[in-house]
Amino acid sequence: MSARAGKLIGVGVGPGDPELVTLKAMRTFGEADVIVFFAKSGNESHSRAIAERHLRAGVTELPLLYPVTTELPKCSNGYRDTIREFYDGAAATIATYLDGGSTVVVLCEGDPLFYGSYMHLHTRLSPRFATEVIAGVTGMSGCWSAAGMPIAQGDDVFTVLPATLPENELVRHLADADAAVVIKVGRHLPKLRRALKCSGRLHRAIYIERGTMADAKMIPLAAKADDEAAYFAVVLVPGWEQCP
Amino acid sequence: MSARAGKLIGVGVGPGDPELVTLKAMRTFGEADVIVFFAKSGNESHSRAIAERHLRAGVTELPLLYPVTTELPKCSNGYRDTIREFYDGAAATIATYLDGGSTVVVLCEGDPLFYGSYMHLHTRLSPRFATEVIAGVTGMSGCWSAAGMPIAQGDDVFTVLPATLPENELVRHLADADAAVVIKVGRHLPKLRRALKCSGRLHRAIYIERGTMADAKMIPLAAKADDEAAYFAVVLVPGWEQCP
Repeated sequence: MSARAGKLIGVGVGPGDPELVTLKAMRTFGEADVIVFFAKSGNESHSRAIAERHLRAGVTELPLLYPVTTELPKCSNGYRDTIREFYDGAAATIATYLDGGSTVVVLCEGDPLFYGSYMHLHTRLSPRFATEVIAGVTGMSGCWSAAGMPIAQGDDVFTVLPATLPENELVRHLADADAAVVIKVGRHLPKLRRALKCSGRLHRAIYIERGTMADAKMIPLAAKADDEAAYFAVVLVPGWEQCP
Repeated sequence: MSARAGKLIGVGVGPGDPELVTLKAMRTFGEADVIVFFAKSGNESHSRAIAERHLRAGVTELPLLYPVTTELPKCSNGYRDTIREFYDGAAATIATYLDGGSTVVVLCEGDPLFYGSYMHLHTRLSPRFATEVIAGVTGMSGCWSAAGMPIAQGDDVFTVLPATLPENELVRHLADADAAVVIKVGRHLPKLRRALKCSGRLHRAIYIERGTMADAKMIPLAAKADDEAAYFAVVLVPGWEQCP
């Protein structure tokens, strides 16, 4: 690390509502020389949209466009190679800014180290450069808060499950948790519904899209058709059956 | 609900660092007629300490002092009755302010509906009064961010476990999750250590006290003695063994 090397800061910008940004994130935006954000090619970056009103005019912006736009099995070699090259290239670009002494801020939806893309940059760059991670409000907190639904308390076991898991694994995990949040619902909704029914949890499950946005959609999963579900929709299964 | 009835707002103030308060929480403090916070008798309220610099001078403050200060089994009837009466009484007091048209803000460490006390007021008062919940950064996000430790990614299953569970249940849940956070560690540390060892997770586990505070303590659990552990200490077990 050179004497004048810069600093990498992963900043959680929260679940969508620009008011759910923290004071610490705000301060960091003001200190940034370079703002980095992820986006799907052809789409607006969610994290940049959340932070936009808080960014310094004229700050250097570095968009990182995901090389794949469809869901591919994470075990496929092609997918892993493509993603690895993408993160390697992004880290190399950011390293040139850091070598030049810049403060580089990576905008992260939700919380940077919880199912976020930032961690792929963090693991590549933290051995060489100073880093800081600023926690953010997660998407799931935004969802259960918007729904006014207590999710877990006391001695509850709480589990986050990707709907991409095989049906029998979903059933096992749902049956073994007091409370659960299922992420990456999308095309897995019919399978998830069967797993919730089999584990006795369907009657308490709530389906949520765009939880903290003005156009949020929240309905009991039992009342929702299987015909369409957003990839980033979540299903909440509250614990806390016996509250004092 | 009378025409001039007030509003109950549960506000997450984050994990400890006053800069991890959101803009929305800040705005809400300015709108509050009454600020409510929980504390153990004889102790300063953590949530009030976090929010203190942001509170309006002269705002009415209503401390709620927990009636029990030691860990009691949640299944004991005496404990449940005492706690139930405490929340009933607190809700009745708050209801008098709400009936009078006040905006009542309840300060909540972390996130209000995630293992928080606020939910006991919410369930009692939301049938009668307008409510709003403002999500906050959780204590666990604060901990893994301070440690710079990616906790979960991709298709990881992530589980939050109270260390109060029986040893065999801890082992089963730890073995079945890719990533875990163990809460309420305290006097359960020796049992937790055995469960982590049995499930093959001890080598990756990190012990953290006061994660986002200046005097934070973070060490590999394998290097920590069993002699003392704080009740609010957490143990992080990161997932993500195979990162792209």
